[in-house]
Amino acid sequence: MGRSLTTLLTALLVACTPTAALWPLPQSLTTGTDALVLSKNFNIRLSMHNAPKDLQDAVSRTEYYLRHDNLGRLLVGRGSSDAGAIKAAKQLSALTVTLESGATTVRSVAQEAMDDIDSRDEKYALTVPSDGTPATLSANSTLGLFRGLTTFSQLFYEYDGVIYAPDTPVQIEDWPAYPYRGFMLDTARNYYSVADIKRTLDAMSWVKINTFHWHVVDSQSFPIEVPGFMELSQKGAYAPDFVYTTSDVQDIISYAGERGIDVVVEIDTPGHTAVIGESHPEHIVCFHASPWSNTNLTILLISYSCNLTEPPSGQLRFANETTVSFTTSLLSAVAKMFPSKLFSTGGDELHASCYDDDAETQAILSSTGQTLEQALSSFTQTTHGALEKMGKTPVVWEEMVLDHNVTLSNNTVVMVWISSKNVEAVAEKGFRIVHAASDYFYLDCGAGGWVGDNPLGNSWCEPFKTWQKSYTFNPTANLTDAQSQLILGGQHLLWSEQSSPHNLDPATWPRAASSAELFWSGPTGNGTAANGRSVDTALPRLHDIAFRMTNRGIAAIALQPMWCALRPGACDLTA
Amino acid sequence: MGRSLTTLLTALLVACTPTAALWPLPQSLTTGTDALVLSKNFNIRLSMHNAPKDLQDAVSRTEYYLRHDNLGRLLVGRGSSDAGAIKAAKQLSALTVTLESGATTVRSVAQEAMDDIDSRDEKYALTVPSDGTPATLSANSTLGLFRGLTTFSQLFYEYDGVIYAPDTPVQIEDWPAYPYRGFMLDTARNYYSVADIKRTLDAMSWVKINTFHWHVVDSQSFPIEVPGFMELSQKGAYAPDFVYTTSDVQDIISYAGERGIDVVVEIDTPGHTAVIGESHPEHIVCFHASPWSNTNLTILLISYSCNLTEPPSGQLRFANETTVSFTTSLLSAVAKMFPSKLFSTGGDELHASCYDDDAETQAILSSTGQTLEQALSSFTQTTHGALEKMGKTPVVWEEMVLDHNVTLSNNTVVMVWISSKNVEAVAEKGFRIVHAASDYFYLDCGAGGWVGDNPLGNSWCEPFKTWQKSYTFNPTANLTDAQSQLILGGQHLLWSEQSSPHNLDPATWPRAASSAELFWSGPTGNGTAANGRSVDTALPRLHDIAFRMTNRGIAAIALQPMWCALRPGACDLTA
Repeated sequence: MGRSLTTLLTALLVACTPTAALWPLPQSLTTGTDALVLSKNFNIRLSMHNAPKDLQDAVSRTEYYLRHDNLGRLLVGRGSSDAGAIKAAKQLSALTVTLESGATTVRSVAQEAMDDIDSRDEKYALTVPSDGTPATLSANSTLGLFRGLTTFSQLFYEYDGVIYAPDTPVQIEDWPAYPYRGFMLDTARNYYSVADIKRTLDAMSWVKINTFHWHVVDSQSFPIEVPGFMELSQKGAYAPDFVYTTSDVQDIISYAGERGIDVVVEIDTPGHTAVIGESHPEHIVCFHASPWSNTNLTILLISYSCNLTEPPSGQLRFANETTVSFTTSLLSAVAKMFPSKLFSTGGDELHASCYDDDAETQAILSSTGQTLEQALSSFTQTTHGALEKMGKTPVVWEEMVLDHNVTLSNNTVVMVWISSKNVEAVAEKGFRIVHAASDYFYLDCGAGGWVGDNPLGNSWCEPFKTWQKSYTFNPTANLTDAQSQLILGGQHLLWSEQSSPHNLDPATWPRAASSAELFWSGPTGNGTAANGRSVDTALPRLHDIAFRMTNRGIAAIALQPMWCALRPGACDLTA
Repeated sequence: MGRSLTTLLTALLVACTPTAALWPLPQSLTTGTDALVLSKNFNIRLSMHNAPKDLQDAVSRTEYYLRHDNLGRLLVGRGSSDAGAIKAAKQLSALTVTLESGATTVRSVAQEAMDDIDSRDEKYALTVPSDGTPATLSANSTLGLFRGLTTFSQLFYEYDGVIYAPDTPVQIEDWPAYPYRGFMLDTARNYYSVADIKRTLDAMSWVKINTFHWHVVDSQSFPIEVPGFMELSQKGAYAPDFVYTTSDVQDIISYAGERGIDVVVEIDTPGHTAVIGESHPEHIVCFHASPWSNTNLTILLISYSCNLTEPPSGQLRFANETTVSFTTSLLSAVAKMFPSKLFSTGGDELHASCYDDDAETQAILSSTGQTLEQALSSFTQTTHGALEKMGKTPVVWEEMVLDHNVTLSNNTVVMVWISSKNVEAVAEKGFRIVHAASDYFYLDCGAGGWVGDNPLGNSWCEPFKTWQKSYTFNPTANLTDAQSQLILGGQHLLWSEQSSPHNLDPATWPRAASSAELFWSGPTGNGTAANGRSVDTALPRLHDIAFRMTNRGIAAIALQPMWCALRPGACDLTA
């Protein structure tokens, strides 16, 4: 794949270009030392016939960001040291955007963003001369052009009313190390408005995250209108206005697609489904059982295992044919709403013991001669089969391959969440993998426990996962070369037991940008500067994207005192 | 002090009144089971001559909150179960507010909020009959009336367009367990706008916090205009618009005072003063020394001690008479800006080793025959002496009494921050104490380390301090009865290395409400239900105040899935 050579190249280049504050860092980047001023009549020219509307809109947004980011350099004086260079600078009047002849038909950014994960082309080349001649952006895909526009907007700063790029000429060739770079949001434990989700999609697109994994429902609430299953949201949402209508969903999918983001929905089954019992009690076992777990909670809160259910309890009665049929119809109806090729059926935290006391399940197993695991496999084959017939590739949580004896298609995508240590075991089974491990990528960890009546207030996945921790994650640790090819990428995740719109931005940004760069630019070599990227060289750039996000309306947290942000390296341990 | 009897009384009452969601819980509370509807023409009548403007304004705000909180009960149905009671309810048309005859003169809420901490009177009595006759609020002070208005507004909910109190008749007698209930904000590491501070003051007042400890400057920036010392903010602020002007400061003091909050400013000396070197290098030793600490940082980051400086380094050359005189003038100028009787001179994290290499200090010590500690004591006596002449009581961090041999006035207030274990040692020296210990009250802990070049990203004060942790803090642990009398109260603190306006609300609320109740209602008996309050009985009320804050514009975090918030106790371990 040529990754090592590129990595080395990037390493050398980074050493020469300390001030290029791009995030994620391009695979190949050279910069100069001239300033280049954005002309008052600068514009971006789409040099193609029938440019898709979403690419045109992306051009407009890029022009808007260039004019309105108003980001001063993160240096003492906020750009005053560039004053001389600005005076001597040429003016840039255009960026010419070209779809390479290799592209046979002009498709929209959204269409390309929803292509099968194996066939997406996000590569682009960007050249910004310092002599005032037009900058050029080219790619084989509108999706690639979209990524290039994102990069272009990050080259510019504001000083004294002038918009300028400090480090021209710039030459970039860029493509992602991994095809899946995601962010997961749980909208079931607490609800987020469409506006919250759109704001998040914008921020995701700025760091080239290409997948919104939408954990839309869970045992606590069912905030999505599904045609044919309206009773689920009517009886299962927290409130009538805490529902994503079918038009909201289309709106979110379009908004994401136009920003190069594929929306992968998850309808978690057969666990995490208590809420279905509000309208269909016949399909749910252990419905609102009390105590809500039959395991020893006091011990589990200290040493959490995936056996711990959270309230309310309730799981699908999957041995029952009527429930299998209901679930298959529900998943199919949801799958129709989402154009993505990926569809997650969940599969985490299933409590087998729940079925021990369910007379109906026991009667079915007894009459069919099946074990519970066999019934689970049959349930999964039916639901997955229906999805696959619709052209979907199933996505599941790790337990479906590690804890259960379920027959899955070879191309099923497995998300590892319990521990990054489990990646190896999944890889050994030959499944494609998305990194989503709680020990590296859970944004909600470390805020204490949320279960009531717990004076200690412990959190099962303490401590807080720092950006440094995820940034230095090694996606292919302990994997053979062949197994490494199974890694599709990874994502940060925000579960919402203790999250809501009020901490969405500060919990997520800029931390989620760290996995965005890890899976776009490639791994860092575990925190060392072996390939030119490390937490200390990344920090000034991460400040930069965080401040840029802030100026674009995201409440990204401060990573350091502003004194440090304005003095790259000054607050390093080794300074 | 009669605290035990009241505590017992509250315990009994709480058992009978599970739905009264007041925060902090009154010392004495009885409630009934009738609903009472707020009449369309309800008003609050100030039954006194010459009611101060700030009390009148508080009345208007209370009326506004009553009409606009729009808080549905935190129960499934959001109040639908009250529909019958609402139908049968009488209408409340007035709250009569009376200053008891004991009050000789009518002073403003702000004046009373800034009284000496020993002489403040926050007691009030509130009665809300269920028969439609006027509710009554009485107190010996306008400050007490203000506290009562705050309580009154928390009795009401909205259902189907009706504003009503579900649990009347209500009888409350209330007063604080401790006179100091604070919140500290560091506006030097990162800057907060006046609007951010005012929003925070509002939220503080809603939970009866009465002190804003304003850590306004530090080594990183000097964002306050001080008459006669304009060069400090001109050269030391992050940006010209990151400065609290003298009129901003007056605005903040007034806004706080009108909400029953005293603003205690801190000018940290002689450490944490590097920024003074930007305009007065002659007063600063170790100015921007590199490395910024001469201690072994790698070890210290793992096992933090108070010997770790953070960048930038720089401390006052306190052995020099010119520096003593400069500092005294500066502190006096700042003290003139703040009407509070309390003034913090800081005194934490002084690095003696910094002076070893300072030829000037060594020459002075050698010529005067003083030790460094003697010079420090002399410096402190001079600065404190000047403040005391102005009627101020000095406040210092614990090191000034535990690590240094400094002569301090007996009435100096000492804040314990390094560890709650140090409270005993400070009490043994006979000083009055404010609890501010990092192991219980630091809101910024547990978010990882912020020092650059630190792949581990550790945080010295991990883990995150949960609301449960601070809520169950015992303010008089290991203290004798006499020593216990030295405890003035305590506070949550938000240091800003990793905080900024973007996470101010979610980092602070509702967590800081836990110390507000602890120091108003008294301790819980360490998490047990011994006195009727514990984390499990507190949780539904904490949800309530968090949702109310949200409806008033504070981005308070979700403590649990909304499913749990709507079902008190359902997510308890023992449910």
